[in-house]
Amino acid sequence: MITPRTLSGFKDRLPEESLPKREMLNSLMKTFEFYGFAPIETPHLEYAEILKKQGSEEIQKELYSFFDHGGREVALRFDLTVPLARFIAQHKNTLGLPFKRYAIGNVFRGERAQRGRYREFTQCDFDFIGSESLGCDVEIVCVIYSALEHLGLREFVISVNHRQVLNGICEILGFSNVTECLRIIDKLDKIGKDGVLEEFAKIGYTHNIAELLDFIAHKDSDYKVTLAYLETFSNKSEALDRGISDLKTFFELLEGLIPSSSICIDLSIARGLGYYTGIIYETHLSNLKNLGSVCSGGRYDNLTQNFSKELMSGVGASIGLDRLLAGLEELGLINGKKTPADILVISLDNLMYAYKSAKELRDNHIKVEVYPESKLKKAMQYANNKGYEWVVILGEEEMKTQSFTLKNFQSGVQHNCIKLKQMLEILGKGK
Amino acid sequence: MITPRTLSGFKDRLPEESLPKREMLNSLMKTFEFYGFAPIETPHLEYAEILKKQGSEEIQKELYSFFDHGGREVALRFDLTVPLARFIAQHKNTLGLPFKRYAIGNVFRGERAQRGRYREFTQCDFDFIGSESLGCDVEIVCVIYSALEHLGLREFVISVNHRQVLNGICEILGFSNVTECLRIIDKLDKIGKDGVLEEFAKIGYTHNIAELLDFIAHKDSDYKVTLAYLETFSNKSEALDRGISDLKTFFELLEGLIPSSSICIDLSIARGLGYYTGIIYETHLSNLKNLGSVCSGGRYDNLTQNFSKELMSGVGASIGLDRLLAGLEELGLINGKKTPADILVISLDNLMYAYKSAKELRDNHIKVEVYPESKLKKAMQYANNKGYEWVVILGEEEMKTQSFTLKNFQSGVQHNCIKLKQMLEILGKGK
Repeated sequence: MITPRTLSGFKDRLPEESLPKREMLNSLMKTFEFYGFAPIETPHLEYAEILKKQGSEEIQKELYSFFDHGGREVALRFDLTVPLARFIAQHKNTLGLPFKRYAIGNVFRGERAQRGRYREFTQCDFDFIGSESLGCDVEIVCVIYSALEHLGLREFVISVNHRQVLNGICEILGFSNVTECLRIIDKLDKIGKDGVLEEFAKIGYTHNIAELLDFIAHKDSDYKVTLAYLETFSNKSEALDRGISDLKTFFELLEGLIPSSSICIDLSIARGLGYYTGIIYETHLSNLKNLGSVCSGGRYDNLTQNFSKELMSGVGASIGLDRLLAGLEELGLINGKKTPADILVISLDNLMYAYKSAKELRDNHIKVEVYPESKLKKAMQYANNKGYEWVVILGEEEMKTQSFTLKNFQSGVQHNCIKLKQMLEILGKGK
Repeated sequence: MITPRTLSGFKDRLPEESLPKREMLNSLMKTFEFYGFAPIETPHLEYAEILKKQGSEEIQKELYSFFDHGGREVALRFDLTVPLARFIAQHKNTLGLPFKRYAIGNVFRGERAQRGRYREFTQCDFDFIGSESLGCDVEIVCVIYSALEHLGLREFVISVNHRQVLNGICEILGFSNVTECLRIIDKLDKIGKDGVLEEFAKIGYTHNIAELLDFIAHKDSDYKVTLAYLETFSNKSEALDRGISDLKTFFELLEGLIPSSSICIDLSIARGLGYYTGIIYETHLSNLKNLGSVCSGGRYDNLTQNFSKELMSGVGASIGLDRLLAGLEELGLINGKKTPADILVISLDNLMYAYKSAKELRDNHIKVEVYPESKLKKAMQYANNKGYEWVVILGEEEMKTQSFTLKNFQSGVQHNCIKLKQMLEILGKGK
């Protein structure tokens, strides 16, 4: 006998977790496709050399790599971006540019196991590759807005910044090591102002830090106010000027496409290390500030740099699925059902009539499970355990009169021997 | 620079392959959920001991196993059934029985690479576990029927047999090594009658083989005819009698649920080795006999035998996704589009108007891609490459009159400066 168990850091998803995840993915995929993003799939396993020397040092330490039957060094992918870069470099002539893709898939990182962090988790990315038009940036933001709206979310803000604005202000204030500055700024939320000052001191910066912090602290729910603030820095840095110009065009194109209350400029957003080169964004649920960003991304210029000399500009975003699911749950937007079905049909003595009735209900677009044995008590326990709101009970009387007895499991209200039409009306599925 | 390439036996799916796969999976999942099957997810990586000594010798040789960062021997799953057994044994108290699940996921087998066979491929299984009711067997068959019907297939036959019928006839004819006999019978299609005789001779059987072959060759499109034939063997073997009785109950319950022309008894179906114990089935597309079974399965009694002493009866089936996709393509049920969008919007000079128009179309349930640059020629090439049927072209005139120019890319017909309502009518999206 083998003890049934999963590896540390890996987990099974039971129906109550898989159902909302699948519903969410389904909704997201629909949104992506409404904007013309097409799905692609890449293997879970790649040549190790494709994945090595990519991502952070941390990620490299966590890489699952091994030798396969043919003696090749292979590794499990740790994200969907490196495989995308490989994919684009490999297929760009077939694909044609620009290319819009989404990808949903599991990735693997042998992190130290900790609460809420898993070694296998699902990523959901969408990218618009091969065009420098700010229209692409606009569409990515529209997709974020539509995606969250379709999930039932109403209160959220997409916060936008531009990497060249940050580069520019660093230049103006005399910080030459921009990457390091951005890395420190990115930690502001975590380590506070004093922590930031300390870190700056470590790399030899002691002047103008208050000015830099003032700059990035500027925030207004109206992007026009922030744009006006930025313009007071005009003509001091080429980078900053390009950032301002991009943001202006971006907001012009975006006008009327999403509510202006759903978007603002937040100059403190840096999105980590050297990856992004243009507009960047994060998305926060207004009622769950501590959740962190549920969708982040931005524009990059160097996606395929390890595979091809050709520069390839693109813009993309990644949805934090687990975070978003946790948010939806906290906001009460997820029901705790363990079954996708609307109704459990229970037969008292004649399974044949139960299956026929179930077919009739399914033909009327109701999702139906039939309890496979004529055992009322066990079936009722089962309905209760699965979280069914409705059960249909079929006995001799129902069969004789070709009717249904419908019981609401929550309220206890029971409708005896009603006809299909009446039942559909009660369930809100009638015309 | 690293050469961008995939491992031998692994492949990327470009949009033209991923789109129909996603549509197919979506349709299948909908069907599963209409019957109350819930999704579950298990990790791609398991303790190696869970996966070892399972499946055939072949499968074991092909296992991708290695040592992880913590020195644990781990392996990539080679199917979804062994993880299901582990899952059920581990969670049965939380889940409650019976339990209906579906699972769609990738599995890994380091097979010798050959045309059309991959080392990573997607499996799609659905199972009804923990009840011996023949109602479960009936529902699995109904799901197969509905699933294929919803994919647009009309001509297919589900062929049914019963393992105890085969056990029984072997007993009656004096073949004591039933497993070996079934293994040989299973190869009849491949090695022919002479091959079968040869193989039987090898294990010392020379008598009654013609009778056995006659028996399994019996076939009639009307299951009632075959049931009557089976009854001529009544009262000679307990196993055969149980098989006949099960099949009778099964067909009684199935009456009226699916067309009788879609199901028959085929006594030659053995479904391989020792796994199944009850009703078994295969599904063949009538116009593509050579494709092989697109959905196979049956009842088993020993799912969790390696993890728990408790016997656990279940019935399940597996859809051959790649085979089914190939079948759908051959039958012309897959379009070759490289984009999920219905329309490409092309702006001649004003991207802002293009995005606004796209929003209007999306609000009317049309999937729209906007070409992100105002370059007509490149955009038209793009539309052609992606297989778009329709493009919308927006210039100064259209913007002035708040209208659309709609062009059918296939026929070349162009509707100049039409209003939204008219356009929706042409696209068949009007009311």
